[in-house]
Parts: sequence; C-alpha cells; structure tokens
Amino acid sequence: MITVALAKGALLKDSVARFAAAGLDFSAVLDKNNRQLMLPTPCGRARALLVRNGDVPTYVAYGQAQLGVVGFDVLNEHQLPVAQLVDLGFGGCRMAVAVKESSGYKRAADLPPHCRVASKFTHSARSFFNALDLPVELVHLNGSVELGPITGMSEAIVDLVATGRTLRENGLVAIEDLFHSTARLVGHPLAMRLDQGELREIVDAMRQASAIALEVA
Amino acid sequence: MITVALAKGALLKDSVARFAAAGLDFSAVLDKNNRQLMLPTPCGRARALLVRNGDVPTYVAYGQAQLGVVGFDVLNEHQLPVAQLVDLGFGGCRMAVAVKESSGYKRAADLPPHCRVASKFTHSARSFFNALDLPVELVHLNGSVELGPITGMSEAIVDLVATGRTLRENGLVAIEDLFHSTARLVGHPLAMRLDQGELREIVDAMRQASAIALEVA
Repeated sequence: MITVALAKGALLKDSVARFAAAGLDFSAVLDKNNRQLMLPTPCGRARALLVRNGDVPTYVAYGQAQLGVVGFDVLNEHQLPVAQLVDLGFGGCRMAVAVKESSGYKRAADLPPHCRVASKFTHSARSFFNALDLPVELVHLNGSVELGPITGMSEAIVDLVATGRTLRENGLVAIEDLFHSTARLVGHPLAMRLDQGELREIVDAMRQASAIALEVA
Repeated sequence: MITVALAKGALLKDSVARFAAAGLDFSAVLDKNNRQLMLPTPCGRARALLVRNGDVPTYVAYGQAQLGVVGFDVLNEHQLPVAQLVDLGFGGCRMAVAVKESSGYKRAADLPPHCRVASKFTHSARSFFNALDLPVELVHLNGSVELGPITGMSEAIVDLVATGRTLRENGLVAIEDLFHSTARLVGHPLAMRLDQGELREIVDAMRQASAIALEVA
C-alpha cells in the first residue's frame, strides 16, 4: 500500500484536492471529527499519514511514507534526503526579512553586524546571512516571531509572509525576500527507484493536475 | 515595568490564577477574543508576554521578560540560563519511554541497541539513554509522536504523559519514567541580582501562594 504524508494546517485542503484530481481520495482527513492520524482511501490503494508540517520530510526520508506534500520552506529548513518531484503551485508565500517600520532599514545589508535576528527558520536564515557576509546572532523561536522586534529582543526577523497582515498589525515591514515557497510533492528516493510503476503513475497524474491548475490560475 | 512571559496552552489558566493570588492580574490573556501578545495588568505595574511554551525560557534568558512560567520538561530540554525560582505544583505530568503494548518490552534497557526512538524532547531523551549506556538513534518529531511506533519508524517514543489516554488510544504503554514535570516560575538571573525588591516581592508571594495551593490539594 502507498503511504502519503500530508501536512496538517494550511496546505491540507489543497493537497487533498490535488490528490483527488490524481485519482486518490483522501477527503476523510478533512472531516472535523476525525481523530485518526492514519486513514486509508476508500479504494484501499493508499493511506494518508496526517502529521505536522515539519514532520513530513522526516516520514518520507525514513521511508514510512513513499510520498508527501510539504512547503518548500520546510524542505529548505530541514535538508533531509527526499526527492522533490512536483511543484504543486499552491500554498504560495515568501520567506522574508522584516524589521520595525520605524527602524529605517531598507534592505538586509543595512542591519548592524552582530545584531539579533529571531526566526523559526534558523537554518534558512543562517544561509542567507552567511551569503550576505553579515554576521548576525540568530535566536530560535517556535512561534509569534513578530514579538522579537516588538520586545526589543531582536533587530529583525526572518519569517514566512503570505498576505503581510500579521506584519502590518505589528508595525513591521518586509525589506528583503530569501525565497518564494510553494507546496511540493516529495518522494522517498529509494521507493522511487524500486517503484514498479505504481508511484510513477500517481506522480505523473499529480504533475498533470498541477499543470492544469496552473493554467486555470 | 515587570514583564512576565506566560506559556500559551495548558498552563495558562493556572499561571494566571497563581499570579492573581500574588497580586498581579493577568486575566486579560484568558479572553478568547484577545489577539494581542503583550498585555499590561490593570494596575500598570507589569505586563504579560503571551508566547509558545518552548519560547518562555528564551524570552527570560535574553532578559526581555524578568519572570516566566514554564514546565520543567521545557526547561530540561532547552537548557537555557534561567533561574528556577518556585515549583508552582500545577501542570503535573511525566516524561516517559513508551512502546507498543504488543512489543513485550518491560523497561527501557530491554530496547535493542541502535533502535530508533522518536521524540519532541530529543535532548532529554539523549541524556537518558546515554546514562543507560544504550545507543539509540533519535528521530526528532514536532508532534503526534505516537505515530513513530504505529508506522514502524521507531521502536519507542519519549514523550509527556499526563492521563495516558493518548497512549492507550494508540495501543502504546509507558514502561519507564525519565522525570516528573511541573510548572516552574523562572527568572532572568541578572534581573534577580539587580532587583530593588520589586521582583523579590512577587517571587515571595508566588512561593506563598504555591505553598497554600499545595496544602489545599
């Protein structure tokens, strides 16, 4: 049986819709009353693992799921050995450096050397500031990163920005993008190599469905 | 002004009640419609920072909050330089090793060397298995750790157990405890040293209120 790791949260609805277009019905995971974390499709050909965003690459890398759907932001942060198969196009957002609007900084290079930067994505932030040759002290936070500059703990943050509403509400402004992120279909490399056509069929169907979705959009 | 970092979630209600007994009214953070992350008390003497469980030690260690309330489990995992001031007694749970009930393992030392152990608390788990002299491969997960043994990714888990309901529902059983955890009042060491009596007063009141709560219980 094929196991697919799906991320709880913002990507779930679109993930289920895309798999439906590719012939796999995971709609049971959208049921509000569902408490199960492992759900089979009605056809019995596959099952979904319902896990945290950041755990999708782990389940796929360890081969407990052959396929998974997760944002590029998470893949870039965790750097686990999974194969990126299809850019699904949805879940678009950008990873950005943001500062207090009143600070006057216009780009990341304006930040003072050795200042503090708070982020949930410290690996991505580290790579970015290293490439910029700007030494900063990264402070890892698990949530509400916007509190960093508000409390004065950090000069800047590196965080995902979708609509920008959270930043505006907190008097912050994005000054530079690290990268753009969308949801990706990922696969266990060995499972892909040993595949007898079953996985390839799903991946191809997902690729086609994504191309169609992209044209419509 | 005194800033107190409070953890969102299970400890919040009891934390607010304990501070109320010590003369600080943070009840505004319990308002369901509240979206603010930084709220002053009505008396204006202090303010609350509403943050994730795992971020409380960070805000206190960096001095953005002079005081904070957080579970011992989090303190033990993050090992940040904060002073543990009072054991508040509530939020009791234990950090335990759990396995599939069908596995037959009776204690942690029964686990096969080099087996996988999934946990959100990989630092605590590492210390425990090192002390046991049992080499294991730790897999870091962010949530739903019980899926580790269910999917076959790991032989065991290390996780918080309160009532044991989640374990039972997933066919798992706790076989050994790492430690017992309760909520702690923590402080920024330098703020405590430079204190003119203001913080000491709150800490003493919290200690008294906790002693009374302990007697009643």
